[in-house]
Amino acid sequence: MDPKHRSYCPLSVALEVFGDRWSLLIVRDLMFKGRTTFKEFQEAEEGIATNVLADRLQRLEAHGIVARRRDPSDARKVIYRLTEKGLDLAPILVEMIVWGAREGRTNAPPAVIRRMREDRDQFLAEIRSRWATTQLPDEAREE
Amino acid sequence: MDPKHRSYCPLSVALEVFGDRWSLLIVRDLMFKGRTTFKEFQEAEEGIATNVLADRLQRLEAHGIVARRRDPSDARKVIYRLTEKGLDLAPILVEMIVWGAREGRTNAPPAVIRRMREDRDQFLAEIRSRWATTQLPDEAREE
Repeated sequence: MDPKHRSYCPLSVALEVFGDRWSLLIVRDLMFKGRTTFKEFQEAEEGIATNVLADRLQRLEAHGIVARRRDPSDARKVIYRLTEKGLDLAPILVEMIVWGAREGRTNAPPAVIRRMREDRDQFLAEIRSRWATTQLPDEAREE
Repeated sequence: MDPKHRSYCPLSVALEVFGDRWSLLIVRDLMFKGRTTFKEFQEAEEGIATNVLADRLQRLEAHGIVARRRDPSDARKVIYRLTEKGLDLAPILVEMIVWGAREGRTNAPPAVIRRMREDRDQFLAEIRSRWATTQLPDEAREE
């Protein structure tokens, strides 16, 4: 047994990476909300604590889900982006959003939820193509 | 704001229910492995601690994802089953398994992963129909 995993079950492996209440919210902010900085993640409505945010960003980076770079327009600023492996989390997020939207009152626009359910492949293709346009040429090569 | 949720985001709501390293492993055991008793969940290879298992089962039951009943063949035994709401987690599990199977070495049979990716709707339909056959007549009505 690989000592770094509790089992070889792929579900267990996935939960070891992002099985907590916060990691996927950061992925959501990057994927759907255009948030890219520590400060923007911190301002998300769920009120993530600074130390939890720092820890989760570090873990997501260690697992190759997010990558950091200097903001080209302001070298003092660090901005985060989803890697291709992070983008591959989109189908999971979509299914979780569809499930969560059934749980009583949410702020999810019903038309978006309907598209996620009924036009899933096209919805995922759009996420991917939107993501591709945010990649810098040299980063596209790196993936 | 509903004080019981940190936000109305459906993803956040979902993570409040099962955003941890263990809950979805119990759902996996019920959905794919035919495990139905506390003892069987405890024997899963990940080595869940007794108190964590008891806590997660209670939470899953409180959220209407699992239900308990007496074993019809042995009234001293409690057995768990997935409710329809629990069954609705299948698409999330499938996507997480597909993602996790890309993460290096896992024990997932490649043929099953391929079916999950390429024949997803049919695969999900089979999970649902297998689940339906395990429901007792009076429980089918209750859903």
